[in-house]
Amino acid sequence: MLIRPKAGILDPQGEAVQRALPALGFDGVRDVHVGRLIELDVDDPGQLEAMCEKLLANPLIEDYEVVVQDATTE
Amino acid sequence: MLIRPKAGILDPQGEAVQRALPALGFDGVRDVHVGRLIELDVDDPGQLEAMCEKLLANPLIEDYEVVVQDATTE
Repeated sequence: MLIRPKAGILDPQGEAVQRALPALGFDGVRDVHVGRLIELDVDDPGQLEAMCEKLLANPLIEDYEVVVQDATTE
Repeated sequence: MLIRPKAGILDPQGEAVQRALPALGFDGVRDVHVGRLIELDVDDPGQLEAMCEKLLANPLIEDYEVVVQDATTE
């Protein structure tokens, strides 16, 4: 799943990256956001949303997106 | 971009999640890996790989995947 800071919530990692890139010579960079990528194999994909709500994300300050990839198609 | 711990490199966040999920009643979970999701708008997508090498990822212990999304198609 992909976990992102909610719009309007402070994103200090994103701000740090946005400030650091021009200092390294990378210009034209805007709207940097840093979130988390969590990958796992699970028997029951129906549990993924509950996992995000209860452990993997903080629903107060983060949005999550569940991306299901069927193992048989990989 | 998506940044993942390289295979074989210690992934303590992934291990912590893998141990915590069964304790919360989520069973059948394997191969948990925690990485980072970095999203940004950039004028020149050709710079993205260099940004990963120089700042956003640690190429010694992390793999990165650049996913370009054309702003005009969003």
